[in-house]
Amino acid sequence: MPTLRSPRARGRRASRIPARQPRKLIRESVRSLHGYIPGEQPKISGLIKLNTNENPYPPSPRVLRAVRAAVDERLRLYPNPAAAPLREALADYHRCAPDQVLIGNGSDDCLALIIRALVEPISPPGLPAPEGVPSRSLVQYLFPCYSLYPVLARIHGAEPWPVPLLNDFSLPSPRELRRGGRWRPDAAVTLITTPNAPSGRGYMTRELERCCLAHRGAVVLDEAYADFADENAMSLALEHSNVLVTRTFSKAYSLCFQRVGYVVAHPHLIEAMDKIRDSYNVNGLGQVAALASLRDSAYYRRGFARIKRGRLGLTRSLEALGFTVLPSQANFVLAKPPVGNAEAWLRFLRDRKILVRWFDSPTLRDWLRITVGNDREIHAVLRASKAWITGSRSGI
Amino acid sequence: MPTLRSPRARGRRASRIPARQPRKLIRESVRSLHGYIPGEQPKISGLIKLNTNENPYPPSPRVLRAVRAAVDERLRLYPNPAAAPLREALADYHRCAPDQVLIGNGSDDCLALIIRALVEPISPPGLPAPEGVPSRSLVQYLFPCYSLYPVLARIHGAEPWPVPLLNDFSLPSPRELRRGGRWRPDAAVTLITTPNAPSGRGYMTRELERCCLAHRGAVVLDEAYADFADENAMSLALEHSNVLVTRTFSKAYSLCFQRVGYVVAHPHLIEAMDKIRDSYNVNGLGQVAALASLRDSAYYRRGFARIKRGRLGLTRSLEALGFTVLPSQANFVLAKPPVGNAEAWLRFLRDRKILVRWFDSPTLRDWLRITVGNDREIHAVLRASKAWITGSRSGI
Repeated sequence: MPTLRSPRARGRRASRIPARQPRKLIRESVRSLHGYIPGEQPKISGLIKLNTNENPYPPSPRVLRAVRAAVDERLRLYPNPAAAPLREALADYHRCAPDQVLIGNGSDDCLALIIRALVEPISPPGLPAPEGVPSRSLVQYLFPCYSLYPVLARIHGAEPWPVPLLNDFSLPSPRELRRGGRWRPDAAVTLITTPNAPSGRGYMTRELERCCLAHRGAVVLDEAYADFADENAMSLALEHSNVLVTRTFSKAYSLCFQRVGYVVAHPHLIEAMDKIRDSYNVNGLGQVAALASLRDSAYYRRGFARIKRGRLGLTRSLEALGFTVLPSQANFVLAKPPVGNAEAWLRFLRDRKILVRWFDSPTLRDWLRITVGNDREIHAVLRASKAWITGSRSGI
Repeated sequence: MPTLRSPRARGRRASRIPARQPRKLIRESVRSLHGYIPGEQPKISGLIKLNTNENPYPPSPRVLRAVRAAVDERLRLYPNPAAAPLREALADYHRCAPDQVLIGNGSDDCLALIIRALVEPISPPGLPAPEGVPSRSLVQYLFPCYSLYPVLARIHGAEPWPVPLLNDFSLPSPRELRRGGRWRPDAAVTLITTPNAPSGRGYMTRELERCCLAHRGAVVLDEAYADFADENAMSLALEHSNVLVTRTFSKAYSLCFQRVGYVVAHPHLIEAMDKIRDSYNVNGLGQVAALASLRDSAYYRRGFARIKRGRLGLTRSLEALGFTVLPSQANFVLAKPPVGNAEAWLRFLRDRKILVRWFDSPTLRDWLRITVGNDREIHAVLRASKAWITGSRSGI
């Protein structure tokens, strides 16, 4: 076949009309978009990886057995399109009905589906002056938070609408929200990361409920880290028709690899998301693994307790070295060095093959977020941090 | 905690504003949407399942071993977010660069990403009169085709724009397209299922190229069934900057359960889709399985040959019974009974635990689509069809 470059071939193609340049084929809003930057996932041997809040403990042996047992000729068949057995098991677990549960390809998929189902893209496309954005096109979120929210809003052509948390990352009361002047009670969707990421701050169900009740639009409680907290707010999704709670098997159930998350909400909202999701959005082995995880909850509860003990030890030891550490209800801590700066600390750890996360934003650039690893990993962080702080102090 | 129903609790919540009714929280375009209806996936013992074009043969033993070997404590870690090793292997396989390949959570994910990246939703939302829909909001497709396309268009708020194939499901030439009067050469995206589903009709690369060259917008060649065909049009995605080819590991590589598909296109188009996809859209064990599949291509080529032989046998035997069978280049055939109607044939097969697919549309309602199974399954279809046709004839 002649290639495109051949002028002779061109001449023969009477019906040819010149295609648009590839960039011109792309929507303008997508061309100007900056995608989400996930934490690094390098495969370096000996690396201590504490940058993306993975669980240091493996899935339960029963889960691994169940997944291995499912790896046979049945891989040729489609999985259950609605992940029905998993929906039913989660409904049992949360004492609700299966039509209040939707399974996603990780909770990222759930968050994207919520925004696509409930938020109207700005029309006509292109960002109007902020004061002109109608509430139906606002993706509001209490900031800092999971950094994916504004990206999802922009991908959808909606307006990201950050509202600051209080200085210590605690939740403003409805009165404080009103006083802030920026808050929009009628935003189509308002997202709250609870326990908060990246600060680790936990919120009481009572204060979350007050916040939910102050909104006319939908409120999403992103509970990716709820299993490491003293309390969770799942009850709010079952009691209030505008509250959605998202969860994931990634962190608490050591299943990042398999992409299973879910959302619990009013059946009408679940039905809307169900209509717009990919019809086989959750892979079969992920469904098998998640289902087996729920059946071995005792194993995971022991793991949560270990992580909480590790978190306490890490917090106290960093504090003893002079670091400021926020009280955490998640499987990571946010810590600020007493001298020097967080970025230098990050580089020092990295040179010792310890990967943690730094966020380049005004609220966060003085801090590092450190995942709670196993005892060996915690020890390595502490030893390296001690060496760095000693060096920094003597360097002053 | 008091429940919502308690009037006393309500009285205490000074900040409460009444939330919108759940239906009012949902975008109007989503409320009125009809979701995609996937083929049934019942788990009935002894069922002969020939309704969703799954491969009758299992994945290669090497693939199963590779997946089992990956089921260990590493499930706790995130997979490669860009599926980089798989992209590289596919780039090798298709003799292109990794930045011309994007991996999706099944090819459904790829198709949705293409539409979201390249098609502008109708603005303001709500469907204007068809003659008024601008080309940038058109999802054009040659019909009949994979029935997901119009659903994806509507989910996105774009206009589904079917253009009929010729009566025998063959591809209209650019001249015939123009003569049809409906065709829009400048549609943002035009989708072609090749080999066609549900007819099985194959298209020559030369005629597909003529069709692609007649479009100013992007042309998607959905090659879900290309491995069962005598030729494929992957070269067009590498030669023309407005042509995208989608493929899947589901059918040819017996991996429906694991959701891995991909798209090959110009790097600018791939970059656009990459920005809007979920950052961990492809599960880890799916990546492992797909990569291992590429390394055992000899096994799969033998499988394709068996399916082609089965297809020929099924076609000839049905024809000998008086059925009309379209020549197929896919792993299914479309067949029409000589007497009676297709729906009655469907029910007769179903009563004998044989599941095939019937489409309730004017072009297709006289036909059944039957997946090419293994020899035992083909035999069962033929025996039951013979019994039905004999009964139908004697009943006239």
